[in-house]
Amino acid sequence: MTLMIQPVILCGGAGTRLWPESRGDRAKQFLSLTGEQSLFRQTLARTPAGSDFLPPIILCGDSHVATVREQMDDREAELVVEPMPRNTAAAIALAVARADADTLLLVMPSDHVIADVPAFHAAIAKGARLAQQDWLVTFGITPDAPETGFGYIAGGGPLGEDGFAVDRFIEKPPLADAEAMLAAGGYSWNAGIFLFRAARMRDAMLTHCRAIFEAADRAVAAGMRDGDALYADAVEFEKAPSDSIDYAVMEKDDRVAVVPVAMGWSDLGSWQAVHTLAACDAIGNAATGDVFLHDSHGNLIRAGGKRVSLIGMSDIAVVVDGDDILIMPLKRCQDVRAAAKARE
Amino acid sequence: MTLMIQPVILCGGAGTRLWPESRGDRAKQFLSLTGEQSLFRQTLARTPAGSDFLPPIILCGDSHVATVREQMDDREAELVVEPMPRNTAAAIALAVARADADTLLLVMPSDHVIADVPAFHAAIAKGARLAQQDWLVTFGITPDAPETGFGYIAGGGPLGEDGFAVDRFIEKPPLADAEAMLAAGGYSWNAGIFLFRAARMRDAMLTHCRAIFEAADRAVAAGMRDGDALYADAVEFEKAPSDSIDYAVMEKDDRVAVVPVAMGWSDLGSWQAVHTLAACDAIGNAATGDVFLHDSHGNLIRAGGKRVSLIGMSDIAVVVDGDDILIMPLKRCQDVRAAAKARE
Repeated sequence: MTLMIQPVILCGGAGTRLWPESRGDRAKQFLSLTGEQSLFRQTLARTPAGSDFLPPIILCGDSHVATVREQMDDREAELVVEPMPRNTAAAIALAVARADADTLLLVMPSDHVIADVPAFHAAIAKGARLAQQDWLVTFGITPDAPETGFGYIAGGGPLGEDGFAVDRFIEKPPLADAEAMLAAGGYSWNAGIFLFRAARMRDAMLTHCRAIFEAADRAVAAGMRDGDALYADAVEFEKAPSDSIDYAVMEKDDRVAVVPVAMGWSDLGSWQAVHTLAACDAIGNAATGDVFLHDSHGNLIRAGGKRVSLIGMSDIAVVVDGDDILIMPLKRCQDVRAAAKARE
Repeated sequence: MTLMIQPVILCGGAGTRLWPESRGDRAKQFLSLTGEQSLFRQTLARTPAGSDFLPPIILCGDSHVATVREQMDDREAELVVEPMPRNTAAAIALAVARADADTLLLVMPSDHVIADVPAFHAAIAKGARLAQQDWLVTFGITPDAPETGFGYIAGGGPLGEDGFAVDRFIEKPPLADAEAMLAAGGYSWNAGIFLFRAARMRDAMLTHCRAIFEAADRAVAAGMRDGDALYADAVEFEKAPSDSIDYAVMEKDDRVAVVPVAMGWSDLGSWQAVHTLAACDAIGNAATGDVFLHDSHGNLIRAGGKRVSLIGMSDIAVVVDGDDILIMPLKRCQDVRAAAKARE
């Protein structure tokens, strides 16, 4: 890779799918779920400063600024603070408004896992070539299961050896459709990772979602600088319609490319996903903290400073955080919001 | 009942079957497991001071004296402190050594539940008539299930309308034997509740387990009084062989009677037993403390000051005590010792 690419790290999410650890100001991206480092730190480490990557633009909410600063570990970056959540299109518009026209922006969620970073970098190199040809590039995860929790991307004609023109985006499918796509091949999961020339995205936004870009652009112009942070202007930014970049731009544009990549990606979208990625003992237990297990297998236990003892339990999640103790079968972890809503 | 009966409350047990709530100095009898009052307070309340009952003799270990005093709630009693645990025969021998010869002693564990106190009192009246005729009386719980966790008593010839001569004691039986006894009738569970004249038990002990009685008798004589408490002498008491009253006396004596009684008795010998007796919601959940339940039924949850959330869990016990969190299927609760042993 000879081009310089500027990472844009989307760090505005909160989310309760990993409640009780993820809640309030302690968002999922700041948690250490797959080892020592938080997901945010892992995301930063994936685009090391130096010959390939420029200092990143980090987009986050006001309540996350302190944690972002702490977890940046003195790495140079520009913080852009969203006064309120306005979804990914407006967040990316803030970065586009800040960036130089010809910079290639690599947009990444801050709360995903990528196990195979060299594969990611190889995909970035491919994507960069396409982005220079004014493709809006999305990275498509090669599916290994008929997941119904992700959107899918149907690849069209090949673009040399770098990727494919996107035929269409498919919303989270029913299981039968997911199975059919897995069997057919040529489909990818939409992981929300994008690469494009800043000016190209600016033009696309002005075409497809002008109100969003203009609000973000004015919010940057009227923003307040505090050291390395730019606080976008609230009055202006609030005018931005709330929409995802997928809906607002990618699905509408006719020059979108997908670079398929198998890189050990996970969005860690549930405690079950955390269990799947965690280091387990020989009988499938992933235990963090002071855990006693007797005749128990396939469990995820995060003891959170307490002492958890399991007898004869299988395939459950136990997550302790402060005074909260969550217990559920791993396969029921999509229902965690029920508890989060009742408790918060 | 016209006779005066002196309760002897055995409060020396510790036990880990209800770990983590029951442990160390906080023994099961001091816990509130079936309502507001501790089992010890319920035991005291079952033999109210007044026309029927003399002030009780309370036997406990040194580490339990403070809790016993607190939970006596200013009720008059004599504390007899065991310097070390020596099982029930030696404990009862201490009480016998203290009591007047013709007093009827009613020996009761302090960690059981009796729901139907009038039925208990009616049985005591029957037992008192037999005890005056120098029977060693045991109260037999009418079985309602083929329990394998209790000893059984085989009734023999009737003793008027008050009870039966005991034919024999049967140790905890295999399930097939328990089922056969339940079907046959005439068998009772041995609940460890006894009634006898003090002098009659003294003589029985001198016959069947002289070393135990003599050690206890000397430990009382050499004991140290501190207010309402008599601290039995450690050097003497230590000489008492450790044996249960069942083995040491009841199974050997040839004038033992059983008074069958159905009184809603439970030894609360497991978290499952606690669940069985607890007030449950319509779908079988017994929750104490701050508990959120979603699609969960048949659970026992004791939140212990924490906030417990269950999603899609059934028929488990969750017991929180301090920093300890125990999770197991209710039907596995006999295995709680595995955790208790590892943790304590």
